[in-house]
Amino acid sequence: MNVVFVLYDQMTALDIIGPYEVLAGHPQVRPCFAAAKAGGISCDNGLTLHADVGFEEVPSPELVIVPGSSRWGRALEDETLIAWLAATCPTAERTVSVCTGSTLLAKAGLLNGRPATTHWAARDDLAAYGAIVRTERVVVDQDVITCAGVSAGIDMALTLAADLWGEPTAKTIQLALEYDPRPPFDSGSPDKAAPETVATAKALLTGV
Amino acid sequence: MNVVFVLYDQMTALDIIGPYEVLAGHPQVRPCFAAAKAGGISCDNGLTLHADVGFEEVPSPELVIVPGSSRWGRALEDETLIAWLAATCPTAERTVSVCTGSTLLAKAGLLNGRPATTHWAARDDLAAYGAIVRTERVVVDQDVITCAGVSAGIDMALTLAADLWGEPTAKTIQLALEYDPRPPFDSGSPDKAAPETVATAKALLTGV
Repeated sequence: MNVVFVLYDQMTALDIIGPYEVLAGHPQVRPCFAAAKAGGISCDNGLTLHADVGFEEVPSPELVIVPGSSRWGRALEDETLIAWLAATCPTAERTVSVCTGSTLLAKAGLLNGRPATTHWAARDDLAAYGAIVRTERVVVDQDVITCAGVSAGIDMALTLAADLWGEPTAKTIQLALEYDPRPPFDSGSPDKAAPETVATAKALLTGV
Repeated sequence: MNVVFVLYDQMTALDIIGPYEVLAGHPQVRPCFAAAKAGGISCDNGLTLHADVGFEEVPSPELVIVPGSSRWGRALEDETLIAWLAATCPTAERTVSVCTGSTLLAKAGLLNGRPATTHWAARDDLAAYGAIVRTERVVVDQDVITCAGVSAGIDMALTLAADLWGEPTAKTIQLALEYDPRPPFDSGSPDKAAPETVATAKALLTGV
């Protein structure tokens, strides 16, 4: 299956690398890293990823994976990206987003009146583009799966792997990635973090 | 602080991207992606990462981060990489590894008689190079931190962030990454996975 990993300037690398590591090792997957233009893509914390192809060369995708960005307000202004998502995702069997990637899908008109989720700091933006915002970590709505911020892409991709290839395969992948998480703190969601932690993070995550 | 993210051919991308996403957004961090030669680095599942500099141009590092590979047996034969680790890591304030990255540190002579961990499938190799193998998810031994396979780098980096910058900062990072993991299965370690899952994964993870 052709799996297109969408890349764009100032994206968050872990949003795409989580699902990539879960899915791309499967023998049925032909991974394709695509951006507006082939070549280097600068991520929001300094890493450069490589786009194999420009959008115009993407093979007919079975699965499209869309990452978010800590600067999602800027990403929402990327007309080339939004237009490509609007044209391509309806032709794919499935579209999945991680983090604020769902705000891009919503702006592309793909989430009108549909349940979806996003990074906790971007829920208002997701609602503003017509989605019905949910707060679950992973939201499956027919051919579209959205999930919460950054690290949630790993949980989402394991759910998807089970759906694509069965639970035994998904469990083998989980074991290969030694995904037995032990966060040293319990501060990973706004419901669990201390109010001052939420306030500090909110001040940092303005989307611009 | 200069943080060197080590890249090499056929490495596992998530091993480095987990710690990168936790650490590189901090204003004190100057991230540097380094490999034997600057340019594209092919990861073991098809992604290309970009090395900003060759090893000879690396600034004096405070922190060196070494990823693993599903083909760690091949990585262990990379004499340029091993020699650079042997020369550089002792000059850094700290060295950390993710997954089978610890087998490279061990081969470089940095873990002789020291407690360390690695991906569960590579424990024999780590022992063969003189480390005292532990099975904890994160092992801190003075200036060297090692951790378990792939996804463990996120847990390790949060522990390190707390040590570097204090718990409130680490908790804010955890919230920004929405790291509130909810694996859909409980199959992430050989102690928890079903025997047939362990057998299947072991057959896949031969290191070559």
